[in-house]
Amino acid sequence: MVERNELQVWAAVEAIRQRRPVVHNITNFVVMNTTANALLALGASPVMAHAEEEMADMVDIASALVINLGTLSKVWVSAMFKAAERAATRGIPIVLDPVGAGASRYRTDTACELATATPPTIIRGNASEIMALCGDHTRTKGVDSTEASRDALAAAHTLHASLGSVVCVSGETDYIVGGQKTFRIANGHPMMTRVTGLGCTATALCGAFAAVTLDPAQAAAQAMAVMGIAGEMAAEKAEGPGTLQLHFLDALYRLTKADVSQRLRLEC
Amino acid sequence: MVERNELQVWAAVEAIRQRRPVVHNITNFVVMNTTANALLALGASPVMAHAEEEMADMVDIASALVINLGTLSKVWVSAMFKAAERAATRGIPIVLDPVGAGASRYRTDTACELATATPPTIIRGNASEIMALCGDHTRTKGVDSTEASRDALAAAHTLHASLGSVVCVSGETDYIVGGQKTFRIANGHPMMTRVTGLGCTATALCGAFAAVTLDPAQAAAQAMAVMGIAGEMAAEKAEGPGTLQLHFLDALYRLTKADVSQRLRLEC
Amino acid sequence: MVERNELQVWAAVEAIRQRRPVVHNITNFVVMNTTANALLALGASPVMAHAEEEMADMVDIASALVINLGTLSKVWVSAMFKAAERAATRGIPIVLDPVGAGASRYRTDTACELATATPPTIIRGNASEIMALCGDHTRTKGVDSTEASRDALAAAHTLHASLGSVVCVSGETDYIVGGQKTFRIANGHPMMTRVTGLGCTATALCGAFAAVTLDPAQAAAQAMAVMGIAGEMAAEKAEGPGTLQLHFLDALYRLTKADVSQRLRLEC
Repeated sequence: MVERNELQVWAAVEAIRQRRPVVHNITNFVVMNTTANALLALGASPVMAHAEEEMADMVDIASALVINLGTLSKVWVSAMFKAAERAATRGIPIVLDPVGAGASRYRTDTACELATATPPTIIRGNASEIMALCGDHTRTKGVDSTEASRDALAAAHTLHASLGSVVCVSGETDYIVGGQKTFRIANGHPMMTRVTGLGCTATALCGAFAAVTLDPAQAAAQAMAVMGIAGEMAAEKAEGPGTLQLHFLDALYRLTKADVSQRLRLEC
Repeated sequence: MVERNELQVWAAVEAIRQRRPVVHNITNFVVMNTTANALLALGASPVMAHAEEEMADMVDIASALVINLGTLSKVWVSAMFKAAERAATRGIPIVLDPVGAGASRYRTDTACELATATPPTIIRGNASEIMALCGDHTRTKGVDSTEASRDALAAAHTLHASLGSVVCVSGETDYIVGGQKTFRIANGHPMMTRVTGLGCTATALCGAFAAVTLDPAQAAAQAMAVMGIAGEMAAEKAEGPGTLQLHFLDALYRLTKADVSQRLRLEC
Repeated sequence: MVERNELQVWAAVEAIRQRRPVVHNITNFVVMNTTANALLALGASPVMAHAEEEMADMVDIASALVINLGTLSKVWVSAMFKAAERAATRGIPIVLDPVGAGASRYRTDTACELATATPPTIIRGNASEIMALCGDHTRTKGVDSTEASRDALAAAHTLHASLGSVVCVSGETDYIVGGQKTFRIANGHPMMTRVTGLGCTATALCGAFAAVTLDPAQAAAQAMAVMGIAGEMAAEKAEGPGTLQLHFLDALYRLTKADVSQRLRLEC
């Protein structure tokens, strides 16, 4: 067990609350409301916009860009490329969520093309998605992973080696590959898998943390830690996945230093 | 009153929880989050995708297809046709929700064309929508029905006769027309009409039940029964439509055999 | 302090609950569910539709039209123009929410073009958005205002003078400019800014109130008063922005005459 404050999770939460970084999201229809609310509850300032006509303007006021393929289509993908290019030019962090990669060739191809054209700062996905990005055409069951996160570790290292991106594989244990060491976060609660969009929310929070933390591996680990801790706090109050999602937002809003230090389960 | 377990509601719920069928939804922007969460809470595995480029791939991993016209547009309708055709080829159940049929000619026409091109396994709508599908241009008030569900029974029988589809008319009493007998489900709570997307959620659950129950009339009746029972359980805890929607998801997640057997109000 | 019942807030709430006016919304993906639920909880009948093919039909059954630029794109903007033109012809109130005006040139231009082509009955925005509509290119931080509502009063008067629209600037104090006097509403709670879409919800409620109240300045003030009062009631029960949004819907649903008379903080 390393020093728990190595990640400086709490300092990053405070930085988000104080600076309120603008996080520009091109994300999917299912989770837009959820991820905007999570960013607001944490203290960031979400923007959701996808028109090509305003991509440059929106990226220019943002401190991080989050691209999520959840309900991709030709026009939106075109805006994603434009936004990523601009973000790279400006030097702000880019977070990519290859939702459902492996479930359709269109998703896998789009995710690979986006990642190759403009290597993301952070890629966050479940095991099936990360493996699909590496050309491992394992069985995929829709947007839910069929593999344990540990099984995608080799793929994560391969992706990191080829793109330079920090790769976060989420699951019962979250792995963050790409820094000097691999972080493992064991926070979270099984009921979180029964709420749509919590994976996408993790990706959005990666954007917020990357906006205030220079090291992208640390930023991803901070985001996954805060997700998991808030999820645990919510699960203790929830009677099911319906109430869980609201207590989760409340927990992000009310999170204290004590919550973080008492609950953080990090190894590296 | 027939044997309550005739519908085998509980066995179907258990089958969904064990098999986690993938339900592919092409649905509307308003309810995507709600219906995905309801499917997850029940135990199914929702996919929401609409790009034509991936329709075949997505239908191929699904055990049921749900098409909902709520916020239709030309591009999406094109994907709906493509998905329905593929689902028919694969022989998986197709559920159609003609949201707002009767409110605009475009909706009515699209719903009729879809239903004719690839007759759905189940059509679920409110009375106004079902009547509009039969060419009965009654008064429609937006997406809310102006008619009692009973008044659409003749239209439901006509639709079933012409298309072969099971027709579910939802309302204070839900009618399922198309099997050897007509099921009537009297579960539910009036406050449910004050939450957007619960009709669409019923349609999505029809998809989940049709994925595990061979007889589509029984599947539709199971879905409506579970909707109504979970709605009643939620209404007992709720202080209004806001809290109702979360307790509803919790109730789907926590539903027990005893809840079903004590609350089911079915006649046929 | 004027007569509190000058606004006849309660009479308007009762009128909405009795008449259930259809409010047609062309709004953004992030808030569609939220605003539909708020309209339903209040007692109105929301329609969300954007296909050009059905714009005329949908406007024809509506008692008010709400246009919100939150996630605009070329196709949707085209539908907005069509809907506004039809609404003007029919003489039903048009409410415009220029979300993010000032954040991108595309938004600012679109908002100005829409407002000029068919002057809205009511324009509701935060201070930055209202100032941007007047050509005041102040600093904008995404979709959140960087200015206090009071600072946009001059811009609101200019807009009203040029377009004839009632202009509502929301913030800690809401200002409604355009009638014989300027209304100031001091209801609300700071936690409301941490829930996405409550500004858009205020706009949607303006549509519902404008459907039953002839004077658009009064309608806008009624809407802002009910928003603020329901928000206060919700904040007293909430533990954070997650639970706030549900208690807010419950409060709209349960609102009583006593709530309004005890809490209304109106000056003019």
